[in-house]
Amino acid sequence: MDADVFIEPIGRLMNEFSKLPGVGGKTAQRYAYRIIDMSESEAKAFADAILAAKRKVRFCKVCGNFTEEEVCSVCRTRDKSIVCVVKEPKDVIALEKIREFRGVYHVLHGVLDPMNGKSPDDIRVGELLARIKEGGVKEVIMATDTDVTGEATAMYIANLLKPLGITVTRIARGVPIGSELEYADEVTLTRALLERKEM
Amino acid sequence: MDADVFIEPIGRLMNEFSKLPGVGGKTAQRYAYRIIDMSESEAKAFADAILAAKRKVRFCKVCGNFTEEEVCSVCRTRDKSIVCVVKEPKDVIALEKIREFRGVYHVLHGVLDPMNGKSPDDIRVGELLARIKEGGVKEVIMATDTDVTGEATAMYIANLLKPLGITVTRIARGVPIGSELEYADEVTLTRALLERKEM
Repeated sequence: MDADVFIEPIGRLMNEFSKLPGVGGKTAQRYAYRIIDMSESEAKAFADAILAAKRKVRFCKVCGNFTEEEVCSVCRTRDKSIVCVVKEPKDVIALEKIREFRGVYHVLHGVLDPMNGKSPDDIRVGELLARIKEGGVKEVIMATDTDVTGEATAMYIANLLKPLGITVTRIARGVPIGSELEYADEVTLTRALLERKEM
Repeated sequence: MDADVFIEPIGRLMNEFSKLPGVGGKTAQRYAYRIIDMSESEAKAFADAILAAKRKVRFCKVCGNFTEEEVCSVCRTRDKSIVCVVKEPKDVIALEKIREFRGVYHVLHGVLDPMNGKSPDDIRVGELLARIKEGGVKEVIMATDTDVTGEATAMYIANLLKPLGITVTRIARGVPIGSELEYADEVTLTRALLERKEM
């Protein structure tokens, strides 16, 4: 990054920006210059937003999603009989955007990944079990990713939940809508064939 | 950006990040989540770096480049007989990285661009003339971009400087080193042919 060609406050700011995902030296430089171009009050608003996000955002004590309160607005207002289990808060955002699901969520904050030392104790599985045992839940939708760790986690949790007498479902896996069959990968295509539905 | 699916502090931080060049909603979201993942002290260091950059960075009163002092370290320590004129501070960084130029700079903070209302009064042309008139400058290298406004600005300034009895030069324009002739654009190739040099 040739840090010595930058004066200290700029080099330092570039260093901070390069901590953001996918930001390299050149991008960090462009961002830093944009900050210097800002007015004093704009820069202050930016810095304040960072501090506020860090200070105000916490995890809902029920579902584990981001919230400003103790319990998030989804948990407070929605149908608690259907719980959708996801890996991360950003998955909640993705699902909320489609405005289709009216139940509540459970954010695991990770998936089982023995290769990287992630065991059931490292994700919010215990909290999910406790929630189910409180009663009132009819269905749990496993909406973890469809990759290896996501599938394994869905399977693991499903096996824990089934004995509790609730319905456990998995999001459908198949050929994405609007895509050409020719370009679907083999695993997806195999799955799409095996799980074909009568029309 | 479906801002309503984000809680306020996250939406607000995403909004700030999306003010950075080239940052859209999805990237702003990734950045915001990274901030929330940070420790309190990391987030504070980030916010502080923004404020410090804005507060400490000013323009060298001689050359107009970024500095923390009144006069930048380049102006204080280098050969003042050669002045390299550039559009923006980032051009100084680009030139400093090659460690070839030992003279000083003059940052115009823009180029002439009548279509967008940028006249000589809007860029640091007057300051350059004043600098030259103080004496001691033997050569001015016009290192503005090689696009239309950069060329026009170089030409305009060269015409102002030549009557002052100093050498005015322009950076060489031609086929970039290491590139295949086949891929050079026509204007560059024409220029490279016209300005061919004896070997």
